[in-house]
Amino acid sequence: MNVLAFGEVMMRLAVPNYKMLEQTESLEMSFSGTGLNILSSLAHNGVKTHLLTVLPENTVGRTARSFIRKLGVSDERILMEGQHMGSYFLEMGYGNRPSEVTYMDRSQSAFCQVKLSDEVIKTALKDIELLHICGISLSTSKQSRENALNLARIAQELKIMICFDFNYRKSLAKADEHDILINSYKKMLHYSNVVFGSEKDLLLLLKIEHSDEEQVEVLYRKFMKEYHVSFFGGTTKVNEGNRKILQGFLANQSDIVYSKKREIISFDRIGTGDAFAAGILIGLIEDWTLQETVEFASVNAQLSYTTYGDSPIISRELIQAKLIDENIDIIR
Amino acid sequence: MNVLAFGEVMMRLAVPNYKMLEQTESLEMSFSGTGLNILSSLAHNGVKTHLLTVLPENTVGRTARSFIRKLGVSDERILMEGQHMGSYFLEMGYGNRPSEVTYMDRSQSAFCQVKLSDEVIKTALKDIELLHICGISLSTSKQSRENALNLARIAQELKIMICFDFNYRKSLAKADEHDILINSYKKMLHYSNVVFGSEKDLLLLLKIEHSDEEQVEVLYRKFMKEYHVSFFGGTTKVNEGNRKILQGFLANQSDIVYSKKREIISFDRIGTGDAFAAGILIGLIEDWTLQETVEFASVNAQLSYTTYGDSPIISRELIQAKLIDENIDIIR
Amino acid sequence: MNVLAFGEVMMRLAVPNYKMLEQTESLEMSFSGTGLNILSSLAHNGVKTHLLTVLPENTVGRTARSFIRKLGVSDERILMEGQHMGSYFLEMGYGNRPSEVTYMDRSQSAFCQVKLSDEVIKTALKDIELLHICGISLSTSKQSRENALNLARIAQELKIMICFDFNYRKSLAKADEHDILINSYKKMLHYSNVVFGSEKDLLLLLKIEHSDEEQVEVLYRKFMKEYHVSFFGGTTKVNEGNRKILQGFLANQSDIVYSKKREIISFDRIGTGDAFAAGILIGLIEDWTLQETVEFASVNAQLSYTTYGDSPIISRELIQAKLIDENIDIIR
Amino acid sequence: MNVLAFGEVMMRLAVPNYKMLEQTESLEMSFSGTGLNILSSLAHNGVKTHLLTVLPENTVGRTARSFIRKLGVSDERILMEGQHMGSYFLEMGYGNRPSEVTYMDRSQSAFCQVKLSDEVIKTALKDIELLHICGISLSTSKQSRENALNLARIAQELKIMICFDFNYRKSLAKADEHDILINSYKKMLHYSNVVFGSEKDLLLLLKIEHSDEEQVEVLYRKFMKEYHVSFFGGTTKVNEGNRKILQGFLANQSDIVYSKKREIISFDRIGTGDAFAAGILIGLIEDWTLQETVEFASVNAQLSYTTYGDSPIISRELIQAKLIDENIDIIR
Amino acid sequence: MNVLAFGEVMMRLAVPNYKMLEQTESLEMSFSGTGLNILSSLAHNGVKTHLLTVLPENTVGRTARSFIRKLGVSDERILMEGQHMGSYFLEMGYGNRPSEVTYMDRSQSAFCQVKLSDEVIKTALKDIELLHICGISLSTSKQSRENALNLARIAQELKIMICFDFNYRKSLAKADEHDILINSYKKMLHYSNVVFGSEKDLLLLLKIEHSDEEQVEVLYRKFMKEYHVSFFGGTTKVNEGNRKILQGFLANQSDIVYSKKREIISFDRIGTGDAFAAGILIGLIEDWTLQETVEFASVNAQLSYTTYGDSPIISRELIQAKLIDENIDIIR
Amino acid sequence: MNVLAFGEVMMRLAVPNYKMLEQTESLEMSFSGTGLNILSSLAHNGVKTHLLTVLPENTVGRTARSFIRKLGVSDERILMEGQHMGSYFLEMGYGNRPSEVTYMDRSQSAFCQVKLSDEVIKTALKDIELLHICGISLSTSKQSRENALNLARIAQELKIMICFDFNYRKSLAKADEHDILINSYKKMLHYSNVVFGSEKDLLLLLKIEHSDEEQVEVLYRKFMKEYHVSFFGGTTKVNEGNRKILQGFLANQSDIVYSKKREIISFDRIGTGDAFAAGILIGLIEDWTLQETVEFASVNAQLSYTTYGDSPIISRELIQAKLIDENIDIIR
Repeated sequence: MNVLAFGEVMMRLAVPNYKMLEQTESLEMSFSGTGLNILSSLAHNGVKTHLLTVLPENTVGRTARSFIRKLGVSDERILMEGQHMGSYFLEMGYGNRPSEVTYMDRSQSAFCQVKLSDEVIKTALKDIELLHICGISLSTSKQSRENALNLARIAQELKIMICFDFNYRKSLAKADEHDILINSYKKMLHYSNVVFGSEKDLLLLLKIEHSDEEQVEVLYRKFMKEYHVSFFGGTTKVNEGNRKILQGFLANQSDIVYSKKREIISFDRIGTGDAFAAGILIGLIEDWTLQETVEFASVNAQLSYTTYGDSPIISRELIQAKLIDENIDIIR
Repeated sequence: MNVLAFGEVMMRLAVPNYKMLEQTESLEMSFSGTGLNILSSLAHNGVKTHLLTVLPENTVGRTARSFIRKLGVSDERILMEGQHMGSYFLEMGYGNRPSEVTYMDRSQSAFCQVKLSDEVIKTALKDIELLHICGISLSTSKQSRENALNLARIAQELKIMICFDFNYRKSLAKADEHDILINSYKKMLHYSNVVFGSEKDLLLLLKIEHSDEEQVEVLYRKFMKEYHVSFFGGTTKVNEGNRKILQGFLANQSDIVYSKKREIISFDRIGTGDAFAAGILIGLIEDWTLQETVEFASVNAQLSYTTYGDSPIISRELIQAKLIDENIDIIR
Repeated sequence: MNVLAFGEVMMRLAVPNYKMLEQTESLEMSFSGTGLNILSSLAHNGVKTHLLTVLPENTVGRTARSFIRKLGVSDERILMEGQHMGSYFLEMGYGNRPSEVTYMDRSQSAFCQVKLSDEVIKTALKDIELLHICGISLSTSKQSRENALNLARIAQELKIMICFDFNYRKSLAKADEHDILINSYKKMLHYSNVVFGSEKDLLLLLKIEHSDEEQVEVLYRKFMKEYHVSFFGGTTKVNEGNRKILQGFLANQSDIVYSKKREIISFDRIGTGDAFAAGILIGLIEDWTLQETVEFASVNAQLSYTTYGDSPIISRELIQAKLIDENIDIIR
Repeated sequence: MNVLAFGEVMMRLAVPNYKMLEQTESLEMSFSGTGLNILSSLAHNGVKTHLLTVLPENTVGRTARSFIRKLGVSDERILMEGQHMGSYFLEMGYGNRPSEVTYMDRSQSAFCQVKLSDEVIKTALKDIELLHICGISLSTSKQSRENALNLARIAQELKIMICFDFNYRKSLAKADEHDILINSYKKMLHYSNVVFGSEKDLLLLLKIEHSDEEQVEVLYRKFMKEYHVSFFGGTTKVNEGNRKILQGFLANQSDIVYSKKREIISFDRIGTGDAFAAGILIGLIEDWTLQETVEFASVNAQLSYTTYGDSPIISRELIQAKLIDENIDIIR
Repeated sequence: MNVLAFGEVMMRLAVPNYKMLEQTESLEMSFSGTGLNILSSLAHNGVKTHLLTVLPENTVGRTARSFIRKLGVSDERILMEGQHMGSYFLEMGYGNRPSEVTYMDRSQSAFCQVKLSDEVIKTALKDIELLHICGISLSTSKQSRENALNLARIAQELKIMICFDFNYRKSLAKADEHDILINSYKKMLHYSNVVFGSEKDLLLLLKIEHSDEEQVEVLYRKFMKEYHVSFFGGTTKVNEGNRKILQGFLANQSDIVYSKKREIISFDRIGTGDAFAAGILIGLIEDWTLQETVEFASVNAQLSYTTYGDSPIISRELIQAKLIDENIDIIR
Repeated sequence: MNVLAFGEVMMRLAVPNYKMLEQTESLEMSFSGTGLNILSSLAHNGVKTHLLTVLPENTVGRTARSFIRKLGVSDERILMEGQHMGSYFLEMGYGNRPSEVTYMDRSQSAFCQVKLSDEVIKTALKDIELLHICGISLSTSKQSRENALNLARIAQELKIMICFDFNYRKSLAKADEHDILINSYKKMLHYSNVVFGSEKDLLLLLKIEHSDEEQVEVLYRKFMKEYHVSFFGGTTKVNEGNRKILQGFLANQSDIVYSKKREIISFDRIGTGDAFAAGILIGLIEDWTLQETVEFASVNAQLSYTTYGDSPIISRELIQAKLIDENIDIIR
């Protein structure tokens, strides 16, 4: 199966050795974004993947491409145009100190400024069976919003399965564009077959009615029915004593299943939601049961907390070893 | 408010990546000392700070100065004289392995050898409202002891508020100078308005009488009364199961308050007491309640366990975010 | 003497170990700009320096400030506003491979977007005796051009000596703004007392008439007379066989002198013109002869080719040792 | 006492900073093997140690020798022959992610290919009082097996005490050589005085009869009696909640003792069994009680989980400090 | 045009910072080989490239693949089989100290052990217009020699243009296989259209008759005629004073041209011949004149001496800038 | 042959990547000293070597020992006493920028403070045939001077050949001890058989009469005769154009020979005189001709300019390859 993802790729500039930015003169560069992260995880599990994004036509853009190829994701459908890409600085947290993210200018990035023509979109969708769109592109600029919706429309016409991830970030949403944003989310959801999100997205963004007495499953059902969504999944995190616990859920039209609760030990905290989403997609592509799928996805997320970088790179051999023996210490 | 601290600055040579010294040929250099650490924390929270110390008049001394400026502390009152400064090697502990510190020759350092004249001291105290003196200077050499006491005397004459930190290290105290040392501590305490220390300091060093049945608060009261101390603060650490817990206290003439108990997760174990002291000083400078002050200070100490280097660099935005949500994971 | 420089500070992201960007995932961060570079060199030679610039009000901007302080330059007159600063990627050349510079978006930087009010400018000029303005600010944005000219106007009113550096970069000049740019250069030159530039600047930008038969000194004289410039200096570079040679010149109203020709061996190629300019300013501040000044400046430039970073950090002890013994190998 | 160990030394190529191999272009090289690991620990505790192994006669082999000397182990009895040595890649686990080991070709290594003549063996055994043989050499090649058995035979003739470590790795044992392997283990055990192993080795490899109702101590007794073993020791690991616990045991002809249970916090997971074995040998060499010996050995193992590298380097000062105060945080 | 190269990929383990192996515990890993190097250079100049090789089916092999993709070379025709790949240690020379290369076992590598079936070969050759074969595969093992010849035979049948590179290394040729080796070289040359080599290859390996009075061009002609070679190219290196000079040549059926002599300044000395070969292929693919081709190729080789790694990564923009201005210092 | 060297070992803290100290927070640690450097070179060429020095009895001293062993030098005769060792900071020069060395306190080092008893000396000299003493120990402290002279006296009584190196550093000689120093040099020379030095040492320190018309060889003869020296050697450095040239000389009782002039290309400039001295000693030990000896020594010195660290580590294979082919580029 050929999978295409659409989304912005940013340069991540991480401070090494748990230092703060002011303590370092050395930065670790990588490239990431929800679309790329999901494709990386799929590629590490044997799926053929392609990224649709816009990168600047210079050394920086070419370096991003080589990084993308290294992850196992095809860069052949990437557009090279403009001179700028967004970047963010990451000060990795340690123990009970949070990670801190500082964004540099994103609105002028090639991704946010370049219009994707219908021709470009159709070429990008050639032979694609599954398309992933990240919700962030609805917030970053007018152009990226139009590109995302246009892409979804054409993909639906071509009967390509569409997967959408809410990924709603309040900090990105401009106050005066809030209604436009909600409408574009709703429009996008009507195109979508598989959706990743949370209770909060349904209540705060879509404002689906839901009384406190009702179970959350009722809310999920309402949402899936209203938007004709085939699969809806996500994760919840809780603290038990001084342990952090992650649990995944996955619903289809008839059932909803939950994964085992798994302890989170954090090395690199970003991109773990994308690991869960990728795990679900692998199960759907390979036609596993809901329960198998959600367990696999939650171990993928759990392990992605312990690996460097935003883009998950764990392959199924390790996930399966972990599913069999949770306390496995060394693999020789 | 202008704050001046007096104390030795040492070169810290830390072994990277939790290795032992014999396993590395690469060292991470920084510069620290109680005075500098406290000023660093104050400067990162908006206070104007100045360091009074002696550094060698060579490349090493100039490098120390540039490091001090980088922390946000003014180096304009530093004396450049002599050719040597003390250094220590740090093998950072991991998990249940302790950190190990090895000192190289300190007694010949510029700080321990150079006499501060009354003129130098008066110039250094210009416009200063709060002076911090670290107790270690009472132990390191005859000259540093005289400098410290002389400085305190002149500051008192100028009606500058004096803050003193016991920082008593048995390993530094020469056996035959024990009485001299105790006397100089007592003399210094009589000059001091704000004092940081512990039960042990009061019992073992000052030998204040205290029966085991009495509560520790009674002991604190006796000490504060005898030495006319306006504020007395410190921290205690305990193990609860396999968790390490820190709690701060702060007393003024009428009250004594305790912070919440907070879990310690150690990345870099040195300088955390200085983070607590700086947190208290910020509260005093900004006239917060005792309780606000001790909570702020204990979060500053807790977070300084998770950051690299002896000198605390956490600013109030992060401390306040942590006070509001203890489980905060990522700040974007 | 208090010196103020006005100019943009950019983040420099250099690829270590002579690799190309696509070969690394590690970058070395520093901060630089003509104004900062010149101040760094002055500060390393005992001059009191202040930078006037705009930095973003976030972790990145605060880190830039700590870097500036570390260089010995006061950050107290820096404005903190906005969220973005410009950056550039540097692939350092080796031997006969050129260095390559790739800029990321500069036009949206805080420096290019924020207006400096007359009040801000007057505060920044307090107690300043010498002001340096970098010509790049005339090209980067309409706002930065206005700020620069406004600053020069007020400084002249305050009778502050103004030093201006052409620093004309064709790549920065937008085609349709060429006339505006030339006019603003001319306006700026009328404010200026000390100017750094080259034959090319006078011919191509100012279009001063000059026949090929005339010596270049005649051209310099015409320029200095027309714009009432007290001092004009610069460097020329030539290849002799496989050696690169640098020579500096400096003219006042009556004389023009040239430095010895000195061989260039390149380690880090950027910022060497700023080292020359700073060397000249030191001689002017300390009232040396023209010849002493130009020799000092050319050794400063020569050595700055051999040191890491854009900002020169060589102090006079080393320059003087080099002036005495050109072949000096080890200083103990 | 002079101790000789016989075993293969491999090059360990570890990925830094908890990354996966595909995420790095930088590797940390060290050299290790059971024999070397045990000698390293003995040498760091004052025992005179010698290694008998074969290394390639080239830069790589010479580098391995310099590494061995650095650990404090004499390299004078090492044979230099051939051109190849085995290597393995280590991706260090983090938290609940396991470490992963990938071996490169080991069968063609100098150690596995070179025959040790009786003369070479006798020279190597000169003045040796204790010989350690690692069980892995019984599996790696026909030649290494013959060398190991020949060495044990000659040592027994010379009345040298022999210590043997099962170290049975199923992945190394070729299916069609299983009987040969078991026989060589049995032969080796008949030569041995001190043995390290586990319940599993006795049951699965030696197939000693043992009903589930019988206590494990009965099994140990049977084994020790059958093979005339003077000392038998080993460790067991269990999970208690989310803590990992290690416990050591040690039996002589009459008694069996257990260490306190100690929590394991993992930094570098390999070589910890060798630390336990070395701890036991130190106790035997210095004639401590069984209980003193097993406590020392288990703290050595516990601390070796927290130090970098396969070869334990902890010396007795730290182990004893830890035995006195389990919560010790900083040693100054 | 689609280009396929066949050849072994080895792991290169380079010692950083010009140290010797015994001075480091850190190594820089990359992957290289003549075939890969040539493809890397082609890919960086816009050609579609594919590698045919065998890599081990483990983490190391997968990491090599990700490195290959990063260079812009398709890994889709690579076979994953076996557990071993060859490696070499590189101690980079400095100035007049030579680089030193130490090989670890290569004969057991997947590349040297795995037979390529006719089916595999035909699949690999699908849509290929130009095939590159490296002469080293004729020496490394019987299997690799058979694979190379079989591949050439099938490619000729499919009318694919074949490019062959002598790359004869005396150290790899076993004494008793010398005749076999010469025969296989001759066989291979009869399949080849484009050949890279030197005077020495023709005289010593092919033993073409040539008197000392005859010019070397006569020798080239004889060779090209005898083996029906369309293009023959190579480089010569000479010392002029203390400068190293490189010159390339290229002959077709009627002409022979030479490049300008260019100075070599060495940063990383390996893979420069491959850069020349790739430069020639680009000219042939794009149908340039012989002279244009040989100049481009010789600048590619010259610049590859100044870049890190065996695989050339210079693209035409830089080569052309260098062709226009040999002294270019900074590109902005 | 067993060689013992006596001399101080210092910790060298080098700034990486040609930066200045203020530009780094990372240092590269190594240990060196004339005695150790010479032994390192001898050990890398197959000689059995032992160091006599004093190191502090702590982690730092133990780390120095492990470094010494790694170089191939026996640490068994080293005394462990005191708590301090000297250190120096090295800012490595680049091209025409000189290296800069800054010493930290050396006078309080264990080496300078501890008295070597006659017993200790006799034990250290057991089985030694050649003893090397470094002249620096005559300047560093009264104790180190006494130790050096005492050692020489006892060695002479034991008929051990003594080699002495002037190594006179004006900066170390205290003004008021100049006469004492000259006397101790003269005393030491009377004990010595092999001496390394320069024209300047003979003229300025020993004040041997010598008119400007006389050739330098006459001066050497006078010196050798007066002090009964069997061998006298050294190097001279000159600039030819922009090349630096080194030439060695060696005299015995009847002849004086000079090496070829060799170009110096500097990577790490310290310790190159020690490489020359070690090369001479190897020739003397192996009974080569004077000319063979001085050529070998001068190539050893030439190559030591191109290798990292003060201690030479080049072995004879490389030196001989270089003697055969001066332009050798890669050794495979």
